[in-house]
Amino acid sequence: MVAEKIDGKLISTDLRLKIKNEIELLKKTHENFKPKIVIIQVGDRPDSSTYVRMKLKSCSEVGIEGELLKYDSNISEIEMIEKLNTLNNDKSVHGILVQLPLPSQLDEETITNSVNVEKDVDGFSELNIAAVFKKNSKLKIIPCTPKGIMYMLDYEKIQLQGKNAVVCGRSDIVGGPMGKLLEKKGATVTTLHSKSTPEQFKFYLKNADIIVSAVGKPNFINGNDIKPGCVIIDVGTNYIPDETKKSGQRMVGDVDFDSCSQIASKITPVPGGVGPMTVVMVLHNLLQTAKEQEGIL
Amino acid sequence: MVAEKIDGKLISTDLRLKIKNEIELLKKTHENFKPKIVIIQVGDRPDSSTYVRMKLKSCSEVGIEGELLKYDSNISEIEMIEKLNTLNNDKSVHGILVQLPLPSQLDEETITNSVNVEKDVDGFSELNIAAVFKKNSKLKIIPCTPKGIMYMLDYEKIQLQGKNAVVCGRSDIVGGPMGKLLEKKGATVTTLHSKSTPEQFKFYLKNADIIVSAVGKPNFINGNDIKPGCVIIDVGTNYIPDETKKSGQRMVGDVDFDSCSQIASKITPVPGGVGPMTVVMVLHNLLQTAKEQEGIL
Repeated sequence: MVAEKIDGKLISTDLRLKIKNEIELLKKTHENFKPKIVIIQVGDRPDSSTYVRMKLKSCSEVGIEGELLKYDSNISEIEMIEKLNTLNNDKSVHGILVQLPLPSQLDEETITNSVNVEKDVDGFSELNIAAVFKKNSKLKIIPCTPKGIMYMLDYEKIQLQGKNAVVCGRSDIVGGPMGKLLEKKGATVTTLHSKSTPEQFKFYLKNADIIVSAVGKPNFINGNDIKPGCVIIDVGTNYIPDETKKSGQRMVGDVDFDSCSQIASKITPVPGGVGPMTVVMVLHNLLQTAKEQEGIL
Repeated sequence: MVAEKIDGKLISTDLRLKIKNEIELLKKTHENFKPKIVIIQVGDRPDSSTYVRMKLKSCSEVGIEGELLKYDSNISEIEMIEKLNTLNNDKSVHGILVQLPLPSQLDEETITNSVNVEKDVDGFSELNIAAVFKKNSKLKIIPCTPKGIMYMLDYEKIQLQGKNAVVCGRSDIVGGPMGKLLEKKGATVTTLHSKSTPEQFKFYLKNADIIVSAVGKPNFINGNDIKPGCVIIDVGTNYIPDETKKSGQRMVGDVDFDSCSQIASKITPVPGGVGPMTVVMVLHNLLQTAKEQEGIL
């Protein structure tokens, strides 16, 4: 078997176009509809700057106004919360995104929870996390990476009910909500994590119909580890040395693509898989919050 | 193998005594320490009245003042929220417990979330649920049944790290938090639920080192289904006909005790297992909130 590639670039491009068209239409039908996101960057880590630039560019491409607020890396927590409160109360702002990681004087949980839950387009605030976790809660804003993966699985018409799903990694923003979202669609989910034994990884991976890996280790999952015909979603972004590249390195996922694609039925590449979906979901969440705040159904 | 019985009555009696002694001591060292719980009952379902009576009795036995507020079954949601707000602001009240289920005009999620998170001794409010779900969040108030089960497992010195745990049922107040708490202690957890197939139940149960069942079906798990030496926690409370009883019925769990106790290493009986632990955890949570609110470390 040679696996079909799940093309995150194509799926995200398609969704981005849909978002762009919807915003264009809404601007025509609702003259005050001006969706706007504010991105907050503290300090100037180069990786954060790259992500922020990418997000602003994506916003502008679909007709979302993006504003970048840059603060000095030693801003105090109180000052930061005051700034967030001002944005929370600003009716022209529909989404607030605090670029992580933050410098150590700012507690990420406190800051994340200071973003109004209605404007929390990352879906990181406690109330949004609780909504993912609760069985019957009306889903509010879903964190972008797991939301993007669910969108991909749906786009690819992958059956979840009655399937064995394995999530590797249990972070608050990927692994945790991922497992819960798969479960809500009827999958039976096992979460593997840093305290799982090698035998447990072996046992559960071999029996998985769907694998989502977010552990951050190159070549973590190999063709020998998996069940024929399974579907693999690779969230890993790892850099390994590669002399053929100008940068001297190359980005790979958690999954050994070559061996796994001989066994799986579908697999996401890295790059070009989950990554582009995560970015477009920021736009999707922003469109949702803007519509809600402007009272558009 | 004949399983050892995990005696919830004994463990809860032991814990109740510890709580009683701690409250006695705190009353001596802090003259204003007067732990108080308010229980709200809407309408007069006989089962609710029984539970409320049990809880009030337990409170009084350990030195917690209990007050019962009974409201008419057609109280409006606004009125109910106003009453909760008054209690939220009343410094003499350390815990508020709304007896569920509520009549249909009251949305349980809205009401539950109207209880101040610091006084939510049931642990049902969104912020407490989010704290259970988030990886690094400081745990606040844990729902009583899963908290009681974790206490039992710890009391019995049952190793969780590296073990296969299976939770049957995914409710917001038992199965959901249960899985997360087991995972936080290092177990690798699979949650089985109404959409899991019979084959999935068979596969995962047979490989489980620890089983927590909360599905509400008598004889749901049988000796043939389980792995020799496993630990079984039975949360089920089901009634089956029994002519030898005056009431004509008898309470049983989800687990066929006779056959499972031949295979498992430890097992909770029903009654006398999880039930008494759940009740004592209300007291434990109340002691915690009272200490926090009175600034006692």
